[in-house]
Amino acid sequence: MLYSKMFGKTKKIVKEYNSINATLLQKAGYIDQVMAGTYTYLTLGIRVLTKIENIIREEMNTIGSEVFMPSITPISLWQQTGRFDTVDILMKTTPANKFALAKNDTEYVLNPTHEEVVTPLAQKFFTSYKDFPFAVYQIQTKFRNEPRVKSGLLRGREFRMKDLYSFHTSAEDLKKYYEKSKEVYTRVFKRLGLGKDTVIAFASGGSFTDDYSHEFQTICDTGEDILFFDKKKNIYYNREVAPSKAPVVKYHDEKILPRKDVLGKGIIGVEELAQYLKIPVEKTTKTLIFETDDNRVIAAAVRGGYDVNEDKLRKIVGCKALKLASAETVKKVTKAEVGYAGILGLPENVALYLDESVANRTNFETGANKTHYHSINVNFGRDIPQPEKFYDIKIAKEGDSSPETNEVYEVMKASEVGNIFPLYTKFSEAFNYKFIDKDGQSKPIYMGCYGIGSSRLMGIIVEKYHDDRGIIWPESVAPYKVHLIGLDMKDESIKQRVRKVYKTLEENGIEVLFDDREETTAGEKFSDADLIGIPYRLVVSKRTGDKIEMKKRGQKEMKLLDLTELLTNIE
Amino acid sequence: MLYSKMFGKTKKIVKEYNSINATLLQKAGYIDQVMAGTYTYLTLGIRVLTKIENIIREEMNTIGSEVFMPSITPISLWQQTGRFDTVDILMKTTPANKFALAKNDTEYVLNPTHEEVVTPLAQKFFTSYKDFPFAVYQIQTKFRNEPRVKSGLLRGREFRMKDLYSFHTSAEDLKKYYEKSKEVYTRVFKRLGLGKDTVIAFASGGSFTDDYSHEFQTICDTGEDILFFDKKKNIYYNREVAPSKAPVVKYHDEKILPRKDVLGKGIIGVEELAQYLKIPVEKTTKTLIFETDDNRVIAAAVRGGYDVNEDKLRKIVGCKALKLASAETVKKVTKAEVGYAGILGLPENVALYLDESVANRTNFETGANKTHYHSINVNFGRDIPQPEKFYDIKIAKEGDSSPETNEVYEVMKASEVGNIFPLYTKFSEAFNYKFIDKDGQSKPIYMGCYGIGSSRLMGIIVEKYHDDRGIIWPESVAPYKVHLIGLDMKDESIKQRVRKVYKTLEENGIEVLFDDREETTAGEKFSDADLIGIPYRLVVSKRTGDKIEMKKRGQKEMKLLDLTELLTNIE
Repeated sequence: MLYSKMFGKTKKIVKEYNSINATLLQKAGYIDQVMAGTYTYLTLGIRVLTKIENIIREEMNTIGSEVFMPSITPISLWQQTGRFDTVDILMKTTPANKFALAKNDTEYVLNPTHEEVVTPLAQKFFTSYKDFPFAVYQIQTKFRNEPRVKSGLLRGREFRMKDLYSFHTSAEDLKKYYEKSKEVYTRVFKRLGLGKDTVIAFASGGSFTDDYSHEFQTICDTGEDILFFDKKKNIYYNREVAPSKAPVVKYHDEKILPRKDVLGKGIIGVEELAQYLKIPVEKTTKTLIFETDDNRVIAAAVRGGYDVNEDKLRKIVGCKALKLASAETVKKVTKAEVGYAGILGLPENVALYLDESVANRTNFETGANKTHYHSINVNFGRDIPQPEKFYDIKIAKEGDSSPETNEVYEVMKASEVGNIFPLYTKFSEAFNYKFIDKDGQSKPIYMGCYGIGSSRLMGIIVEKYHDDRGIIWPESVAPYKVHLIGLDMKDESIKQRVRKVYKTLEENGIEVLFDDREETTAGEKFSDADLIGIPYRLVVSKRTGDKIEMKKRGQKEMKLLDLTELLTNIE
Repeated sequence: MLYSKMFGKTKKIVKEYNSINATLLQKAGYIDQVMAGTYTYLTLGIRVLTKIENIIREEMNTIGSEVFMPSITPISLWQQTGRFDTVDILMKTTPANKFALAKNDTEYVLNPTHEEVVTPLAQKFFTSYKDFPFAVYQIQTKFRNEPRVKSGLLRGREFRMKDLYSFHTSAEDLKKYYEKSKEVYTRVFKRLGLGKDTVIAFASGGSFTDDYSHEFQTICDTGEDILFFDKKKNIYYNREVAPSKAPVVKYHDEKILPRKDVLGKGIIGVEELAQYLKIPVEKTTKTLIFETDDNRVIAAAVRGGYDVNEDKLRKIVGCKALKLASAETVKKVTKAEVGYAGILGLPENVALYLDESVANRTNFETGANKTHYHSINVNFGRDIPQPEKFYDIKIAKEGDSSPETNEVYEVMKASEVGNIFPLYTKFSEAFNYKFIDKDGQSKPIYMGCYGIGSSRLMGIIVEKYHDDRGIIWPESVAPYKVHLIGLDMKDESIKQRVRKVYKTLEENGIEVLFDDREETTAGEKFSDADLIGIPYRLVVSKRTGDKIEMKKRGQKEMKLLDLTELLTNIE
């Protein structure tokens, strides 16, 4: 490819975006923002995206068949699973104007994921136990009604994705395939150059199961996820599910003081409260009132400095969904305005769940369940019976330990590059999709889904592989293998020489970007090459004589080679 | 690929769809209808689609750079060209439910074509005369708010398309590129196996130019377009633009009769009227009243049996748009209810355009401009002055001649497989996209757009290449080159033999679909092979001994070959 013919060019000045990938990819001419979260892939960009998708395709072909489902589908499919009215990133299509409305007024779902399409599709073809297991995948554009989109290709309203769905006659068979998929995913990330920094982390399995799902996370300083690593067990957890034990805070030889209620009007945040009461934050307590989907009202308390993890709490409480109680309910239960709830004297029908972080404290604070008041010098056994049990219902934070190994977690930032999710019978049940077993009986079908965001990966690779000059692509996904620079090209003999190199490389099946600009300085060409980040930079100029100068991006060493040596070095 | 692992299977019974392609592609397991006009491509289908798109891609790379623009884009872009409120196949996206609405209430256009995206994109990068000409293309899913979708892959609400856009500094340069694109398109259709039946036809250039656009039309009995072929000039016209001369109808030695007005209450259609008046249809006249965008009211008349071609009429009248006049206007102008308009005694400010088909008649009929009445025995020169000029404002029909060569057209059905369209400055002007010329002046940019519907092509190839047993794919787009059938596979030695053939073919880089089913009869396997339509059918069975039986789809001859001979025959 001639640089002069390429659609999209490097830019000297580019608006600084919130993310490295958006800035570098636009500066180097890979993508162009049409609106927040929505990009055009220019000549260079579509090449990288295609390479990523082809690697994914090759690996997925080992465990599934490729198909291509439509983006717009009937709303009725999404109504059948109850997701049409609840999924908050869901968009639909509608006629754009009155002429369109007159022509066809039907609305369609614009799919962000395809469980609602693939389940009835599979049902049309495969219902005998002999047909199972099977899996299908597609690589496709998806749509999400995202409100905030500021991380370049990492989060888009429109993005590219591989989604695979597997179908099984038992939970065990699903599990077996699920483990196999981990191996295949690991190969994908290895081939994309992310192998050594990509780990499998436990993540939430969603509201229909107590089981985990798994995320493939690339450890990365600019990552938007936080991982908790238990070194002893070699396990990574996404913060959202990390089991946690708070560090024990000890105040030696402390005398048990008389409890009292202190006026603290409008002082609600724990930091502010600790300062006001002149006590450490660790002595404060955060009490929240929740309502469950089965109409229970419960209270949950964590030590000051922590937050309640609703997913953990939900599983312990044993309900399908919970939400913070309304102000009205809070008032009824605590007999106080919102902000003064505490663990003392709650009604008997309000179950109280205490996080382990509130244990092992003396003279601690809690809301007084009295408007404007806080109780201090509260002690278990005296002011409230010693609880039979403490739970883990908090969001883990740095400094916490694994409850199982007592090892203090190593905490790191990471970016999700893929996820795998056991769906069990959630979708097959919604569509009443069953299989006929050997015994003639109709039985439930188990499903799994497996995602990789290909455009997102392009962004993450840039976040991971760059320096202050530009991108440093892994060879497997670089838009071209070689960036050929001709200098002094007004000299006809040099122009001929560089053209010969270009032709020879192409004839040998090597992908080359040839910077054929005649009026650009050497400095600009070198700086563009660093910005674009193609693995091999070759220079032909007066200075290189009959030879070609070769340098790898990200390295300093240069070699002067003749054409034959060059081909050997590159292949 | 093992047949048993393929997602999607042949079906014995399939609903008969309105089109051959929908029926055969679903019966053979290539596609599955999700809703009218929207299909999933199954394992076989995505392979064919990908092959078609790769051929298109290879050819387009010779005249443009690939990019990938987003499907959802800001509404403001479409408002800038005025198309947001007028294009009747345009859809937009909107949040699907109240949670989605709360998250992000912005609506976006779901693009059916990308002029509104590519023009401002090009504007960001290329503004110097040195940058021109250039062209970009993409292969992408498009969306159209189609009301009637009944032709399988030929017309979809969601479909795949290649769209290319070219940019030029002059109309001459656009013309040059436009001619070049015809050559490239011709190569594409040749490679897809449609070469000998695909012709270039003149079609409408749209409302902003008097120029033609060009369609690539594949001649095909089930085609939805009608072509008019002028053999002398070797030119094809789409019916919508075909210049036409009606056959002259002569009634020898006819006496000029006295004109009279005849009561014919409620008799409006020309067939019914001719019968009622006991005259040939050719003696009736159809007169229509139109209003133009510049507020003129005009009358247009064609001979009974013809219809007015509004596009031809618009160009002759010299306005940008016209529509049938309202009942109110018709009454005002003709002083009669709708249905009795005629060419006699129209107000002077209503220009009358007469098609050449109304000339050369004696004693003809026309509406009397009087409710319920028709004038008969009307003659030019006596009842109405002999017109200075007759026009061609009718829709051509079979039997018509080319006005230029007088040759009676050959008329045939065809299916559009591609179109190329000179856009001139329509879109560049809307975005005020100009280039800076050598002289420092800002000058207009000329654009062209060039489409090929890749999924539509898949349907057309099936319409063209099938017999009563199934599809007959051209080799270049067949999902596999070889369909290998194992028979008597319960015999272990035969199973081993057919597996060896499968392995050898795959090792030689030949794409094979291996029907590995053990419980299926030979008859079913043969009939599935014919239905699926892969070019080479191979059989290994007891009967074939050490050899392999080879037969080409669509031919009767069979050969018995050993493995080495087979490889030579296939490669």
